[in-house]
Amino acid sequence: MSENTLVTYGMIGGGEGAFIGDVHRHAINLDGKAKLTAGCFSRTMANTLATGAALHIEKDRLYETYVDMAKAEASRADGIDFAVIVTPNKSHFPIAKVFLEQGINVVCDKPLTTDFSQAEELAKITKENNLLFAVTYTYSGYATVKHARAMIAAGDIGEIRFVKAEYPQEWLAERIEDSGQKQAAWRLDPAQSGISNCVGDIGSHIENTVAYMSGLKIKRLSARLDNLVEGRLLDDNATILVDYQSGAKGLYWASQIAIGHDNDLSIQIYGSEGTIRWRQEEPNYLEVAYKDKPAMRISRGRDTLKERAESLVRIPAGHPEGYFEALANIYKTYVAALIKKRKGKALNAEDMDFPQPEAGVSGVQFIEKCVESSKKDAAWVDFKES
Amino acid sequence: MSENTLVTYGMIGGGEGAFIGDVHRHAINLDGKAKLTAGCFSRTMANTLATGAALHIEKDRLYETYVDMAKAEASRADGIDFAVIVTPNKSHFPIAKVFLEQGINVVCDKPLTTDFSQAEELAKITKENNLLFAVTYTYSGYATVKHARAMIAAGDIGEIRFVKAEYPQEWLAERIEDSGQKQAAWRLDPAQSGISNCVGDIGSHIENTVAYMSGLKIKRLSARLDNLVEGRLLDDNATILVDYQSGAKGLYWASQIAIGHDNDLSIQIYGSEGTIRWRQEEPNYLEVAYKDKPAMRISRGRDTLKERAESLVRIPAGHPEGYFEALANIYKTYVAALIKKRKGKALNAEDMDFPQPEAGVSGVQFIEKCVESSKKDAAWVDFKES
Amino acid sequence: MSENTLVTYGMIGGGEGAFIGDVHRHAINLDGKAKLTAGCFSRTMANTLATGAALHIEKDRLYETYVDMAKAEASRADGIDFAVIVTPNKSHFPIAKVFLEQGINVVCDKPLTTDFSQAEELAKITKENNLLFAVTYTYSGYATVKHARAMIAAGDIGEIRFVKAEYPQEWLAERIEDSGQKQAAWRLDPAQSGISNCVGDIGSHIENTVAYMSGLKIKRLSARLDNLVEGRLLDDNATILVDYQSGAKGLYWASQIAIGHDNDLSIQIYGSEGTIRWRQEEPNYLEVAYKDKPAMRISRGRDTLKERAESLVRIPAGHPEGYFEALANIYKTYVAALIKKRKGKALNAEDMDFPQPEAGVSGVQFIEKCVESSKKDAAWVDFKES
Amino acid sequence: MSENTLVTYGMIGGGEGAFIGDVHRHAINLDGKAKLTAGCFSRTMANTLATGAALHIEKDRLYETYVDMAKAEASRADGIDFAVIVTPNKSHFPIAKVFLEQGINVVCDKPLTTDFSQAEELAKITKENNLLFAVTYTYSGYATVKHARAMIAAGDIGEIRFVKAEYPQEWLAERIEDSGQKQAAWRLDPAQSGISNCVGDIGSHIENTVAYMSGLKIKRLSARLDNLVEGRLLDDNATILVDYQSGAKGLYWASQIAIGHDNDLSIQIYGSEGTIRWRQEEPNYLEVAYKDKPAMRISRGRDTLKERAESLVRIPAGHPEGYFEALANIYKTYVAALIKKRKGKALNAEDMDFPQPEAGVSGVQFIEKCVESSKKDAAWVDFKES
Repeated sequence: MSENTLVTYGMIGGGEGAFIGDVHRHAINLDGKAKLTAGCFSRTMANTLATGAALHIEKDRLYETYVDMAKAEASRADGIDFAVIVTPNKSHFPIAKVFLEQGINVVCDKPLTTDFSQAEELAKITKENNLLFAVTYTYSGYATVKHARAMIAAGDIGEIRFVKAEYPQEWLAERIEDSGQKQAAWRLDPAQSGISNCVGDIGSHIENTVAYMSGLKIKRLSARLDNLVEGRLLDDNATILVDYQSGAKGLYWASQIAIGHDNDLSIQIYGSEGTIRWRQEEPNYLEVAYKDKPAMRISRGRDTLKERAESLVRIPAGHPEGYFEALANIYKTYVAALIKKRKGKALNAEDMDFPQPEAGVSGVQFIEKCVESSKKDAAWVDFKES
Repeated sequence: MSENTLVTYGMIGGGEGAFIGDVHRHAINLDGKAKLTAGCFSRTMANTLATGAALHIEKDRLYETYVDMAKAEASRADGIDFAVIVTPNKSHFPIAKVFLEQGINVVCDKPLTTDFSQAEELAKITKENNLLFAVTYTYSGYATVKHARAMIAAGDIGEIRFVKAEYPQEWLAERIEDSGQKQAAWRLDPAQSGISNCVGDIGSHIENTVAYMSGLKIKRLSARLDNLVEGRLLDDNATILVDYQSGAKGLYWASQIAIGHDNDLSIQIYGSEGTIRWRQEEPNYLEVAYKDKPAMRISRGRDTLKERAESLVRIPAGHPEGYFEALANIYKTYVAALIKKRKGKALNAEDMDFPQPEAGVSGVQFIEKCVESSKKDAAWVDFKES
Repeated sequence: MSENTLVTYGMIGGGEGAFIGDVHRHAINLDGKAKLTAGCFSRTMANTLATGAALHIEKDRLYETYVDMAKAEASRADGIDFAVIVTPNKSHFPIAKVFLEQGINVVCDKPLTTDFSQAEELAKITKENNLLFAVTYTYSGYATVKHARAMIAAGDIGEIRFVKAEYPQEWLAERIEDSGQKQAAWRLDPAQSGISNCVGDIGSHIENTVAYMSGLKIKRLSARLDNLVEGRLLDDNATILVDYQSGAKGLYWASQIAIGHDNDLSIQIYGSEGTIRWRQEEPNYLEVAYKDKPAMRISRGRDTLKERAESLVRIPAGHPEGYFEALANIYKTYVAALIKKRKGKALNAEDMDFPQPEAGVSGVQFIEKCVESSKKDAAWVDFKES
Repeated sequence: MSENTLVTYGMIGGGEGAFIGDVHRHAINLDGKAKLTAGCFSRTMANTLATGAALHIEKDRLYETYVDMAKAEASRADGIDFAVIVTPNKSHFPIAKVFLEQGINVVCDKPLTTDFSQAEELAKITKENNLLFAVTYTYSGYATVKHARAMIAAGDIGEIRFVKAEYPQEWLAERIEDSGQKQAAWRLDPAQSGISNCVGDIGSHIENTVAYMSGLKIKRLSARLDNLVEGRLLDDNATILVDYQSGAKGLYWASQIAIGHDNDLSIQIYGSEGTIRWRQEEPNYLEVAYKDKPAMRISRGRDTLKERAESLVRIPAGHPEGYFEALANIYKTYVAALIKKRKGKALNAEDMDFPQPEAGVSGVQFIEKCVESSKKDAAWVDFKES
C-alpha cells in the first residue's frame, strides 16, 4: 500500500433495509477521503450483492461471510485499510476480533460489545497488533462538544460539582417491537441486544459524552431501570445516580417512552465558576453561564471555538451543521490518523481524538453496572478502576 | 362580622428588611378583596411600628408579640378574618397554632413546619375548629398548572408513567451565608431552617407541584442530598428517585448551586398517550405532545383552558401574567371561600382549591424522608400512607 | 388635601363588561398606594352604580356624567387626586379636557386623542394648569425596557443604525367585528376608533416603545396600511418605513391578522457596537449582543439592571413579572410624583419617568402620518418637528 | 456515455483559498452519486494544479481557462456530465454560456448573473440546447421548506394574506472589506459583485425562498437600500415592501450589519386559515399555527412530512440535518434527473424540483428592481410579467 493511495474501507452490515450503514457511508462520503471497496452487507448474499451493485463495488469484493472477507482483504495488495462494523450489538465482538486478527483496522458501532471481558479483549488485541480502532460514539464528534471539553480542561468553569445529563426519546412509547418495526424488534430482543435496551442504546451515549466532555471518572452508581411499557423484555427508561472519583455528583436519565422528544440528549455541567449546557438537537450552539454574569450563547462559526474544535468546522456561522458532520469528524480524524501512521509518523493525542476502544470498554462496564444495580433495587455498585 | 364587610387580614413577619411579606401584600392587593388591618411584622416593635405606619395601619393594631395579636384580634368585633404567617420556618408552628386556637383562619408560608407531627397537629386543629388554612405553595396557583392538573385528571395524556421535575437555582453557588446575605444566612442555619435547606426550600415545591398537578402519591423514595459547596451546614443540591403508589416512577432534582439558572422549576409528566411540560419561568405556556403528533404550545389567553384554570385568567393572550398572579390566585380563592363560608354556604372542592394543610403535612414528610434516606446512603425509605 | 392623605383616584369608563378598566384597577392595586373613590364607569348609570357597589365606592361619588364628576370632585375637600380615563379613543379628548380644566390630574389610555391638534391642546392645558398627565403606554413601564433605554443612552451599543420593530397579533384574523365581539366592534368602527384601527391600536405602541427606548425622533415615514380581511372598514395590517432625524433607519410592522401570535411586540435596535432585542411576551429578559462576542441574555433579577430599571423590580430572578407590573410602574411613578409635588418639592427627570402628554401628541401624529402616507400609495411624508 | 456510468462533474472556481467550492464538493460527496473529474479552479494555473492534486483529479483534466475546459470536456468520450460554477457573480454569465454552448449541463451559484438580459439569455440557451440547468438557491433544498411549499400548495393555511421574511447577518457590521477580508472585499466591490451587495447576496435568497415556498409572484415593490456603514460602496441593509399579483402583501428585510445574527433567514407566511414559520438556523422544524388552535412544531423525522419532502430525509428525528443536506438535495435531484434523462425517460415536475434558470432570471430582476426603486427614493416599480 503506497503512501498516497486513497484510503479504502469495507463494511460489515448495512445492507438494504438496514439503516445505520447508510448513515455511516454518508458521513464518510462527506469529506471524500475514503472509498468503500468491499462489503459483507448482510447475512443474505443476495442482499450483499444488490447493495454492492448499488454502491458500485466490484463483485469479487462482495463476501458471503465476514470471515471470508477479513481473510481475502488481508491477503490483497489493495485490500481495505479499515473495516466498518454496523451489525447488531451481539455480533460486534466476533466480527471485530477476526478483522483485528487479520491486521485490519476497525471502526465499530457502540456499544462495543455486550460483555465487559470481550470489550477488554478487543482493546488488548488492538494494542498488541498496533492497529487503530474507533468506536462510533457519534456525539463526541460535534465541534461544540469538543469546545466544551476544551473549556473544561482549561478550567474555564472551575471545578466540576454536578453533572445532569438526559436522553429522552419517544419512539418506544408503544410496544412497536411486536408489530414488526425492525429497529425496535432487535433492540428489545435480549438475544440480539444483550442485557439492556435503553441503557445500552442511549444511556451509553450519556456515559460516553459526559466522560468525553468532562474527563470525570465514575466511582460508583445507583440505577433504577424501568420497563414502563407493560410486557417489555428489556428496560425502556432508566434513572442513574452517579458519584465520580473527584467527589462530583451526577444524575443521568434515559428514556424511550418520553412522548414529545425526538432524540433529546442534553448535558449540563455545573462547575464552581460556571456552567456549560449542550443539547444535541441544537448542536451549533453551547450555552455558557458564569457566576453573576449574563448567560451566553456560544455559536459555532460566529464565535471562535478552542483550536481543536474550530479545526473541525466546515461552514460559517448560521449554516447549520448536523449529525453527519459529527460522525464525519470521527472518520475524518480516524482516516487522517491512518494516513499519518502509514507515513510512519507518530500519532499525538489530537491525532487520536476519536473514541478509543477504552471508551468502548468503559461503556460496556457502565451498562453492566447499571443492570447489576437495578437488580439489587438500585443499590450502589462500584466501578472497576481503569 | 357582617356578611358584606370587606375581608381583613393581619400579618406576622414581613417587616422592613424582610422580603416575602411584601410579596404577599402585593399579591393580596392585586385583586383588592382583602385589606391589611393588623400586624406583628417583626420581633422588634420599632420595626413593626414603622412598617405599620408605612402601610397605613392603625397604631392600636400593631402588636409586640403574635400572642398579643392573636388574642386582641380575636376579641375585637372588627378583628382580622385571617392571619398571614411569613416568618422563618421554625416559628410557623407556634404562631399558626395560637391563631388557630383563637379561632382565626390562617395562611402560612411553606414548609408548613419543620417537624411532621407538628404539621399533623396544625391540620387537626384546623379541622376541629372548622377554620380555613392555606399553605402558600405559590406555583400551584398558576392558571397553566391548574390546566395541566385538569388535563391529567381528565385522562388527556393517558396513564402517567414517569415524572421528571427539577428546580435549579444559582444563588447559593458561593458561600454567601457567611458574608451577611440575610436570606442565605437563615436558610443555611439549622436553628432557623430545620433539617434541610435545599429540599426544604425548593425540593418541597417540586413535591407539591407534582402532587397537585398529577395526583400521584409517593410510595417510597431514595435521596442523595449533597453539600457541594464546602463547609456548608445544610444541603444545597439533591437528587431524588421516587416510586409512586400507582407504579409510576419519578425523578426530582433540586439545586442551589446551578450557575446560570434563576428559579428554574420545571415539571414534565409523561403519560401513555401524551406529555405535559411546564416551566415556571414561562408560566403563560404549557407544552403538550401527543404520541405521533406535532408538539403543541398551549398559550394562556389565546387557547381556552379547562374551566377552573380559565376562571383565574386576568388578562388576554400575550400580556404576561407572572408570580404575583399565581400567589394572588391562592388568596383570591381563599378569600372567596371565607366569604362564602361567612354566608353560611357549603364549600365544594373548587372553593377549596388552595393548598390545604394536608399538602403542608405531606411536604414536611417529604423533607424528613429525603433527609432520612440520604443519611442511609440513599437507601429507599417508605412513605407513611396518608 | 393634607400632605399625608392617601392618594385617591376616580375612573371614567371601565364599567362591568369593559375590560381595560379592570386591568388598570389591578395595576393600581398592586402597590396599594392609591385608592379608587369615585367613578363614572359607564354611559349607563345602572352600570356605574353596580360597578361602584362591587368596588366598595360610596354612592354619592358615582356620577351620571363625567362633567358632573369633574365638577363635583373638584369642589370636594377630599376630591380625587387624579382621574383615569379608559373610554374608547374618540372620547379621550373631551373627558381629559374637562378634568384638566377643573384642576384634576389625568391618566389617559392611548392613543391620547384621535386628532393631532386635540392632543396638542391637552398637552398645553396640562402645562398651563401645572398638572401631571400620564398616557398609559404600558410597555414603557417594563423594567427591561427601562434598562434598554438606559443602555442606549449610555452608549452601550454605540450609535444606532437600524431599528426593527413588530407587533403581530392573531385576534382579528376573522371578521369578528360583525359577530358582536365588543372589543373588535368599537376598534373597527371609525366613529369610535378614529382614522385607524391597527396603527392606532398597536402601531402606536411600536412608535412609543421605540421612541422611549432609543430616543430617536422620526423625520419622515412611508406607510402601507392594509385591509387584509375583506370588507373591513379600517386597517388590520401595516408596514412602515421610517427615516429618523439622526440618519438611522427603521422598519415597523403591525398586524392583527397574524395567526399564531398572541401579543407579540418585539423591538430590535442595532447599533454600531451592539444590538438589543426585547420581546414583550418575555419581559423578564433582554437579549444583548456585542460585535464578535457571544450573545447574552440579561435576566431581570439575576443580572443587575441600570439604576432606574432596578428600582422598579419587585421580585427576585426567575419569579416572572408581567404586564400588571409594567402598568403598575407607570402608576407607581405617577403617584410618587403627585405626592412629591403635593409636598412642594421639585420634580426631576426620573420623577417624571411616566409617558408624558408630549408622547401622546407624538403618537397621534404618527397615526395621522401613517394614514396620510398610505392614502398616497406609501409616499414619504414628513414629520412636524417637535 | 453509457447509461450506467457514474455521473461526473467539473468545477469552475473553488480553488484553494476560496470557500464556496469546498461547500459544493462536500454536498455533492454526501450522497456519493457524482464524481469530480475535471476543474479550472482558479485564474492561476498553479492553484488549479494544487487543488486538483489534493482532489485526486487527473492532471490532463485540469485547465488553464474555462473555455479550454468546456471545449476539451465536450470532446472527450468520458467528458463531464455537468459543470459547477462557483466564481464571483460577474463571471457567471460568460462561463455558463460557454459550457451550455458546448452542450454541457450547468449548475451555477446565485445570483445567476448581474444583468437581467444575460439571465434571460442563459435560460433561453438551456432550453434550446435541451440541457439541465440548476441555480443553487440552497435554502429551497431543505426538507422543511419543501414541506411548507406542499402545505401551501394543498391549501393547508388557506389563502395567503401576508409574507414577512427577513435575513439579518452581522458579518459586515464593520468595514472589513478594507482590511483584506476576501469574501467582503469582492462582495462590496461593484466590479465583481454588480449593482448590489446585500440585496444581491442575501435579499435574493429571500426572494427565491418566498417564491418557492409560497408560489406568489411579485407585482411591484418599493425598496430602500441603505449603506449603514459609512463609506461603503454598495448596500449593506435593505427594506422592501412587496405587492404580489394575488393581492397579498409582503415585507422583506435583509441586513449585514445586524450584530448578534449569524445567518438568520426566516420566513413567515400568514394565510387566512393558518401560519407557517420557518427559520433557516433551525431547519429541522417548522412552526405551524391554525386559527384558534395551539401552535404546533412540526419536526422533521418525528412528524411525517408531505411525500416529496419526506423523500429527502436522510436520518431519523432528532438527528439534526443541516446546510449540506439542503444543498445535497438540490444535487441529488439534479443528478437523478440527469440519469433519468440519459436513459431517455421524460422528466416530470418532481424530477425538475431543483432551482430552474427561470428562478435565476426572477432573482436577477428582483435585484435590479430593488436598486431602481431605491434610486427613486423607494418609489414603487413594477415587475415585468414572466
